[in-house]
Formats: sequence, C-alpha cells, structure tokens
Amino acid sequence: MDKFMEAAIAQAEKSYNEGGIPIGSVLMRNGEIIAQGHNKRVQEANPILHGEMDCLLNAGRIGSYKDTVIYSTLMPCYMCAGTIVQFNIKKVVVGESRTFTGARKFMESHGVEVVDLNLQKCVDMMTRFIDEKPTLWNEDIGEL
Amino acid sequence: MDKFMEAAIAQAEKSYNEGGIPIGSVLMRNGEIIAQGHNKRVQEANPILHGEMDCLLNAGRIGSYKDTVIYSTLMPCYMCAGTIVQFNIKKVVVGESRTFTGARKFMESHGVEVVDLNLQKCVDMMTRFIDEKPTLWNEDIGEL
Repeated sequence: MDKFMEAAIAQAEKSYNEGGIPIGSVLMRNGEIIAQGHNKRVQEANPILHGEMDCLLNAGRIGSYKDTVIYSTLMPCYMCAGTIVQFNIKKVVVGESRTFTGARKFMESHGVEVVDLNLQKCVDMMTRFIDEKPTLWNEDIGEL
Repeated sequence: MDKFMEAAIAQAEKSYNEGGIPIGSVLMRNGEIIAQGHNKRVQEANPILHGEMDCLLNAGRIGSYKDTVIYSTLMPCYMCAGTIVQFNIKKVVVGESRTFTGARKFMESHGVEVVDLNLQKCVDMMTRFIDEKPTLWNEDIGEL
C-alpha cells in the first residue's frame, strides 16, 4: 500500500477512535501530502464534513486542483464526487467500494479516473462500524 | 417573490458586503426557515462553503431531509447538487441560472424537482460580482 492510502487509513482510524465515522482522505500533489482529513459528522456535528470534504477544507484555497490526486478510504458519495468534478480533480484513489458503491460512474462520466484498491483492511473497518452504528451510517449517507 | 428567496438574497447581499461571493441559501421545512447561509470562500478561506453548503452546515444534523426545500440565489454547482442528491432533498428553488448553468440536469436525473425563478435581481447581483472579480469567481467554480 502506498503512503497516501496509509495516511488516509490513519485518518479513518483516528475518527473511529474519537467515536466518529471511520472514513479518511488525503490530497496529494507532486508526490506530497498537502492536506488530510476525516469525517467529522459526530465530532463537530457537521453533516457536510465527509472525509473528502474535510480534507479539501484543510487544503484551503489552493487555486487549481489539476495536478492533485485525492485518496479516500471509501468510494465517494455524490456530495464528495460532485465536489471532485466541480473542483476539476482528475484522479481519485479509493480503499474500497464493497460496503458503499458510491458515485464511481458519475465521476467517470465527467472524465475523472477512479482507482479502487479493494483493500480488505478498509472493508473490515467499515463493516465493523456499520455493524456497530447502523443508524449513524444511514444518517451519513442520507438514508434516514 | 416569496420570503424564502428574499432571505436567500439577503444572505447573498450580506456576503457581497463582506467582500465575499454573493450567493445565499435557505433551507425550508413546513413553511419555516430552518437554516440560512452564504458563500464563505473569502470570509473563512473555505473552498467548500458555497452558499448551499454553508446553509446545510448551519442546519446541523437534522436527520431526514425529505420534507425540506432548499433555496439558492444561483443554480447549484456539482458540489452542491451532489450534496442535494446524496441528502435526498427533493426540491430546489433557484434565483437564476443565466450567469451559471450549474447541474440542473444532474439533479433532475436523480428525481430532484428544480424550479428556476429567473429573477433579474439575482442575475444583476452575479453579473456585477463577476465583472468586478472574475478570477475569484473562476476559483469558486473550479475554472482556474
């Protein structure tokens, strides 16, 4: 596993240990991590801070995203996928899409390259969380 | 004009007067305003706080969005449209889509009702802003 996905997983684990939703994200440019983040729905009572959104918030106003790659431990939902499309981020690397299929086709239809690493570690992390807190998970994906 | 769009316009004007991007939003449920917000890219150096996103942040964790309607002075971009789809908000009322066509078809393809009031006041507000700060506007829509 590359260091970017490792850092995204570390963000997810940090969120889980805080009682939050275990999804983490990293923004990479020129081989360097320029921002990291994780879901903060629980921690900040913030419904829009999915892992990817928190990462992009933490990156700040960086101008063009055209040389960036975003990593996420889970396939982006429509909120995060729409953000990736609007911001013109051209590549997404995800840990898995088995526990949540997300918006892969939507991103690909807008020219975003999507790489799914299909990591058992990420599947196990989400499966444990969904088993423990199914209502919280349904809240996070708009399924209440 | 109804009081919801009036409140969204007031949010947009507030943002303009702060030196920010003049786009405002309101979340309505059962005929009442439950949250308001405006673009805060400039005010908080926050690239994800478009008007609609700030409004949804301010609403907090409200559970289901199925009885809500979101108002925006401008047609939502893919970030905000993806959020509306993911959160299962079923209706969007916008002030205009002449200065930015946004993601209407995407929302409609996911069953969201989109009403465009085509208000000259909203067009004038955006036209003035885009003329004054074209680079800031291009930054906000990912066109740098």
